[in-house]
Amino acid sequence: MNRDRFEKQKDFILEIDKEKNIYRQTHLSGHGRNENDAEHAWHMAIMVYLLQEYANEPINVGKTMLMCLIHDIVEIDAGDTYAYDEEAKKTQQLREEQAKERIFSLLPEDQKASLTELFDEFEANESPESRFAHAIDNLQPFLLNDSNDGGDWVEHGVGISQILKRQTKTRDGSEVLCDYIMERLEDNIKKGSIREDRRS
Amino acid sequence: MNRDRFEKQKDFILEIDKEKNIYRQTHLSGHGRNENDAEHAWHMAIMVYLLQEYANEPINVGKTMLMCLIHDIVEIDAGDTYAYDEEAKKTQQLREEQAKERIFSLLPEDQKASLTELFDEFEANESPESRFAHAIDNLQPFLLNDSNDGGDWVEHGVGISQILKRQTKTRDGSEVLCDYIMERLEDNIKKGSIREDRRS
Repeated sequence: MNRDRFEKQKDFILEIDKEKNIYRQTHLSGHGRNENDAEHAWHMAIMVYLLQEYANEPINVGKTMLMCLIHDIVEIDAGDTYAYDEEAKKTQQLREEQAKERIFSLLPEDQKASLTELFDEFEANESPESRFAHAIDNLQPFLLNDSNDGGDWVEHGVGISQILKRQTKTRDGSEVLCDYIMERLEDNIKKGSIREDRRS
Repeated sequence: MNRDRFEKQKDFILEIDKEKNIYRQTHLSGHGRNENDAEHAWHMAIMVYLLQEYANEPINVGKTMLMCLIHDIVEIDAGDTYAYDEEAKKTQQLREEQAKERIFSLLPEDQKASLTELFDEFEANESPESRFAHAIDNLQPFLLNDSNDGGDWVEHGVGISQILKRQTKTRDGSEVLCDYIMERLEDNIKKGSIREDRRS
């Protein structure tokens, strides 16, 4: 074992432990507490395996799982930016770029390079793997929130037009999963969990 | 999309959300709160990718990551059994067998079969992937606890002979990671975080 190399890997492993304290707006099923980024990523990776048959294009499943596992690491510094917080989203890119550089630099150079590349591939959203990862990134909180009678949408007064804008990425990764979400959205509008703002 | 099939997948996905509420004895770094099973599994999967070079034998990294991600799902019913709780360990196998049958049966038959097989492979600990997964299953809480001055060992009054018994599995998966742990254990004995009970 090259001890210097291992110490760098260990420093990174301990650093990302902090992701377990980055809480999201989504609540766990059963009207539970807020979910954190590490739990969200764990759930996504298993979903990639289980739902791979619904990807629009063939994907490398292991690569997509790893992409999901690391895609929120920058939020250790940058914090979680709520999908419908337009003010916070203006500064999100710069905050996340700085975080990416600091956190991945803890690793040995070769692993910094490969994880940065995978992170950038997710962000660029141009490969089959990244498109499916984005679909799952949207579907995972959707399923939790739908199971909680749309409590998160109600809490934030979210309108259907905001959700539809976000879900365009879901369709790029999976037509059928997006169709499912669209059907469930209509039901949530009927129940009053989501504001109908398409005619305003 | 076969809707009946998707509903089964969705039921499983929502069921395993409960793993986020299964808390372990390990505390997060920085003397934080107890860690839960989903966070532990997320951390392990990333560690498998980062530390694969230390496996005794070549491994399929994607398979090992998935094995780690699902290896504690049975604890949704069976609860977490602390590594040094000898009473609870007597009933652990039966409790986990029943949980495995109930939870994986939520899935479509083909996915129930493949995840059950992967889970059983982990438990049998006879393949290169399962041996490395066990090494990481031991190393992950070890790194957190070591970073917290051994607080979990102090809390439970754990003796070095108990730890050494458990760490035999680490050596089967990774000689070099086990060597690292052995070195750090001696340091924790010196500091008084672990009871020296080898001469009693």
